Amino acid sequence: MKVLIAGLGLIGGSLALALRERGLADEILGVESSPEHACEALRLGLADRIVTLEEGVPEADLIVLATPVDTLPLLAVKALNRIDGRQVVMDLGSIKEELCEVISMHARRGRFVAAHPLWGTEYSGPQAARRGAFTGCNVVLCETERSDADALAAVESLFRTLGAPVLCMNPEEHDLHAAYVSHISHVTSFALALTVLEKEREQRHIFDLAGGGFRSTVRLAKSAASTWVPILLRNKYNVLDVLREHIHQLQILRRMIERDDAEGLADAIRRANTIRRILP
Amino acid sequence: MKVLIAGLGLIGGSLALALRERGLADEILGVESSPEHACEALRLGLADRIVTLEEGVPEADLIVLATPVDTLPLLAVKALNRIDGRQVVMDLGSIKEELCEVISMHARRGRFVAAHPLWGTEYSGPQAARRGAFTGCNVVLCETERSDADALAAVESLFRTLGAPVLCMNPEEHDLHAAYVSHISHVTSFALALTVLEKEREQRHIFDLAGGGFRSTVRLAKSAASTWVPILLRNKYNVLDVLREHIHQLQILRRMIERDDAEGLADAIRRANTIRRILP
Repeated sequence: MKVLIAGLGLIGGSLALALRERGLADEILGVESSPEHACEALRLGLADRIVTLEEGVPEADLIVLATPVDTLPLLAVKALNRIDGRQVVMDLGSIKEELCEVISMHARRGRFVAAHPLWGTEYSGPQAARRGAFTGCNVVLCETERSDADALAAVESLFRTLGAPVLCMNPEEHDLHAAYVSHISHVTSFALALTVLEKEREQRHIFDLAGGGFRSTVRLAKSAASTWVPILLRNKYNVLDVLREHIHQLQILRRMIERDDAEGLADAIRRANTIRRILP
Repeated sequence: MKVLIAGLGLIGGSLALALRERGLADEILGVESSPEHACEALRLGLADRIVTLEEGVPEADLIVLATPVDTLPLLAVKALNRIDGRQVVMDLGSIKEELCEVISMHARRGRFVAAHPLWGTEYSGPQAARRGAFTGCNVVLCETERSDADALAAVESLFRTLGAPVLCMNPEEHDLHAAYVSHISHVTSFALALTVLEKEREQRHIFDLAGGGFRSTVRLAKSAASTWVPILLRNKYNVLDVLREHIHQLQILRRMIERDDAEGLADAIRRANTIRRILP
């Protein structure tokens, strides 16, 4: 199988490594808008050749779109415009509603599979690509009923080979859930980093006290603006909803602390503890 | 050396394991208010005998206080009341101002060393005790000028043997810094868990999308109320200050998302990214 990957950063690059590791790709073509990333990707073996989308699409059996989410809808249309009836196009983006809407009336909609592997790190670019990236992570597929059976089967088989369980969801549900369990974590982490960095201006030794807990909650604050600005703005209404609820919960905790409400605070913490049920 | 540890939970229990591992204690006496924890601690080898504070203190060379922070000031006074001029009392609590004030005029103040090893996990109780716990973690000592030289030297040597670098700070500075880089992380994590659990009532499959990022920011939400209610209430004014600033930062980010301010958002994220400088 010849695979074209557009965007050889953290996600696209890690997929390239996984395809090679499992022997799923005979050749990997890369599309990269950044010349530095293109060089780096070749050097790291993430692609065999760097091509333009126009050059590469006709050659590839599978076209994978792994660029920032704001570029995906147009890129999906351009890729679909250039394929024939046996090729498959898949994206790996972390929001789905706009993308699925944009391609919904495309004559070749059936050749597209919308996928979101729930994997990532706080790093970006080709050098962030990691071996074994998707193994054990859920992959959400959206609007599978709109994909041709063979295209869907090809993508499902790919993720099965990578050891990533597949589940289906509609795009609206996906984007709402993603706001709750991924996007909000990034916003709180950015805000936490800004809070502490602000204070550090006066208090230089503040980080001498940073332990594993701080490290863990602030880790995502290292994530790239080029990835996250598009996600937060394109999933705006869901993100704003979650953010409002999160600020509300913080204000409730703040009021309990203000009033020395030990019982209320203990009760809230015990309710928060039930997250163990889901994340043991 | 005979060591008494009051509180054989996560911190006290882990210290017991570390003392044994490094051959620093000939015998460990444990004080435990919970009968279940006492049994568990004996079974896990965290203590050789369970005693009362009154029984144990006269026997021990070093008395370590590792109970919840609201119990520490009185316990410190009671321990100091029962020692002679060669014994040493140390606490391992994560706030210091009230404790240092309470013992400040005690006739045996010099025998006390106020210590805070910057280590912990989200688990609690004797079964949470871990080998190698303090190695590589900073330990803050407060008001070292108020401790006798030999008592201070004994505690410093203990942490040196455990591989934990020691630094000094005044109690006010310590509690402020701890609010910024530890206590706030817990509050945001509790609030995040509550936000998502609230939503889960309607949306049962929300956690299918939870990846490593969510797991990392929400980890601390598993922490025990019995540990954290006293910390948040005893460090109230610092925690409220940080919480106000954190909510303010979240509101700024929210407003940028509302207004589609991509540039402002990118700038804020890039500033948050500078946390890399401190936590590579």
